[in-house]
Amino acid sequence: MPTNGRHAAGAGALLAILRDGRPRTRGELARLTGLSRSTVSQRLDGLIGSRWVVESEGGISSGGRPAAVFAFNGAARVVLAADVGATRARLAVLDLGLNVLAERVADLPVELGPEPVLGGVADGFRELLAAAGRDPGQVCGVGVGLPGPVEHRTGRPVNPPIMPGWDGFAVPEWLRARLGAPVLVDNDVNVMALGEHWAARPAVDHLIYIKIGTGIGCGIISGGALHRGARGAAGDVGHIRVPASQAPCRCGNSGCLEAVAGGASMAATLRAAGIEARGSKDVVALMRAGDLRATRLVRQAGREVGAVMAAIVNFFNPSVIVIGGDVAEAGEQVLAGVRETIYSRSLPLATQHLAIRAGALGDRAGVVGAAVMVVEHVLAPAGIDRAAGA
Amino acid sequence: MPTNGRHAAGAGALLAILRDGRPRTRGELARLTGLSRSTVSQRLDGLIGSRWVVESEGGISSGGRPAAVFAFNGAARVVLAADVGATRARLAVLDLGLNVLAERVADLPVELGPEPVLGGVADGFRELLAAAGRDPGQVCGVGVGLPGPVEHRTGRPVNPPIMPGWDGFAVPEWLRARLGAPVLVDNDVNVMALGEHWAARPAVDHLIYIKIGTGIGCGIISGGALHRGARGAAGDVGHIRVPASQAPCRCGNSGCLEAVAGGASMAATLRAAGIEARGSKDVVALMRAGDLRATRLVRQAGREVGAVMAAIVNFFNPSVIVIGGDVAEAGEQVLAGVRETIYSRSLPLATQHLAIRAGALGDRAGVVGAAVMVVEHVLAPAGIDRAAGA
Repeated sequence: MPTNGRHAAGAGALLAILRDGRPRTRGELARLTGLSRSTVSQRLDGLIGSRWVVESEGGISSGGRPAAVFAFNGAARVVLAADVGATRARLAVLDLGLNVLAERVADLPVELGPEPVLGGVADGFRELLAAAGRDPGQVCGVGVGLPGPVEHRTGRPVNPPIMPGWDGFAVPEWLRARLGAPVLVDNDVNVMALGEHWAARPAVDHLIYIKIGTGIGCGIISGGALHRGARGAAGDVGHIRVPASQAPCRCGNSGCLEAVAGGASMAATLRAAGIEARGSKDVVALMRAGDLRATRLVRQAGREVGAVMAAIVNFFNPSVIVIGGDVAEAGEQVLAGVRETIYSRSLPLATQHLAIRAGALGDRAGVVGAAVMVVEHVLAPAGIDRAAGA
Repeated sequence: MPTNGRHAAGAGALLAILRDGRPRTRGELARLTGLSRSTVSQRLDGLIGSRWVVESEGGISSGGRPAAVFAFNGAARVVLAADVGATRARLAVLDLGLNVLAERVADLPVELGPEPVLGGVADGFRELLAAAGRDPGQVCGVGVGLPGPVEHRTGRPVNPPIMPGWDGFAVPEWLRARLGAPVLVDNDVNVMALGEHWAARPAVDHLIYIKIGTGIGCGIISGGALHRGARGAAGDVGHIRVPASQAPCRCGNSGCLEAVAGGASMAATLRAAGIEARGSKDVVALMRAGDLRATRLVRQAGREVGAVMAAIVNFFNPSVIVIGGDVAEAGEQVLAGVRETIYSRSLPLATQHLAIRAGALGDRAGVVGAAVMVVEHVLAPAGIDRAAGA
């Protein structure tokens, strides 16, 4: 039997109607979907069993006695989201409307390895659920962003450079065994792109989220969906070669964008000039304190990023470029450099309606995006059919 | 009523099942889709009326008398496809399996304006239909590729530089009035990308088709679908700036890829050296005749294209790059230059399984792609519902 036909006839079609929040009778649902009444009843039983739908003796009268009505039960379900960074993890509990119900930031250096970090994440989730007055049975999914490449199909890290002990670790299985809900994992920049794409509604089809922090990377939305590329390697703009630079890069090549415009390289440049700077946050702090050298570096970094993005704008023609990450907190200095270069080098048709702006979600982009990933998965017709056992 | 629910309940779900070619009874279709028998009958009437489905008194016995069976009628429908170039148009009649039933190349300089060119296209189609023994009533759609930017939603050219008189011309309406079938229009490189993507089956999710001819442009497949970008301007790689070049470009800027690696610029370079060369075809002919200067130019053009594509590979992570266009007919010289640069400059994870190759369809990429565009449109559930009046 074709997959499309099955999903069309399944629970997903009912939930697609009920998501608007208005309760309906069996008869209304049969009429709206074209499904037979026996199929509707069967699918509703599955959705009620998995708590997606609630039944009540509604006020709609059909002949003598009131007919049962069925309604979407979104408020009763929650999503757990974690944005795991190099040294800290942000954890949150969200409802299906992506409202943050509770959140915290935990010191969890990713270099401790998967079990200590994920154990800390699971403990943190339990405390947050209690704080939000929810129970683990209400969790419909868990979303996790990790600071390295992830094979999306399996949710496992693939040769992550700053995550010793994580290579190939079965993150979804490990967390599912402890949290009892489906777990989705992706790399941090993809997850942040999903968050900023959600925040950029009404719907934007083509969006690029670029993170300028210690390193530089981007997440790509094409046609409303994340573009991960053939090997999950899409968005690795930090290692695009910049003309006229021979700066050595941690990747082994030289002249990479990250080696001239990343936070780590800017901090190293300042240190070489005798200025105390450990990383990207220090560079931004120096700039805010009025240090001219740091200000020039940040502005020039914006121009270098802009030169690379100008080519990508001609190729990809996005409607929105969102800039995030520590260095982006330097605000207008970075944006000005990026805009200056893109507008002077890209084609007019591609930049005519192009918005280039700072992220709307700030530090929360990762947890909101991780929750978006979960909600899109569980509310897709196929996901609902699985959840409902249809 | 939600759009998804309506399509799920419509004719599309039935055709999704019948496309495998096996005839089914009303009862089987009701069981397979979960639709009520009355909905199935109603949708089948629509599909029979529009010739997508044929009914026969099948051999399957149900009780005493044989039950009617319903089958997909794909062989009875054809697609018309046109690849309109600067000076000539290739026209073809294809079946729904994308086999070319008849084709011809017509001298139709696009600068004559829309009515003479499209009139010639319509006349050519009528002759090809007759040659293939088909009648106009069998045409389920018309696909057209044009050598300039096209607004996909309306099928109208937008400020096309080499097409005087075409700006905003209602190509779909004009042709539909003469051919009596839905008309889809896109720019030539997008249509060629669709053709080469179809030819690259089994399915490739992420493919870039780059055409190196008089100018340079590319068509992008992301997640199995054409990525057109926010303003339909995606793929305009010909005007990405190349380091260390100040060559003036026809776009008004200088240092564009097209101005150093396009066929027109190479021909101009040869003419400046006193060698007779009108365009890209002459450059390739000179190279084939052993002219060293032309050979060096073509090889260097491959390297320049490769340098731009290396950045795009890091950003987009395609599984296949297909190279087409006149200059690509120079074959290994161009491919060698492109490969050399991409493999030395892109990240190993992104190039590990990357195939870089010449187009599989040659001159036919455009007409096959135009037909793919039509078939995808009319066989999509929404397209079928429209066609069947559901």
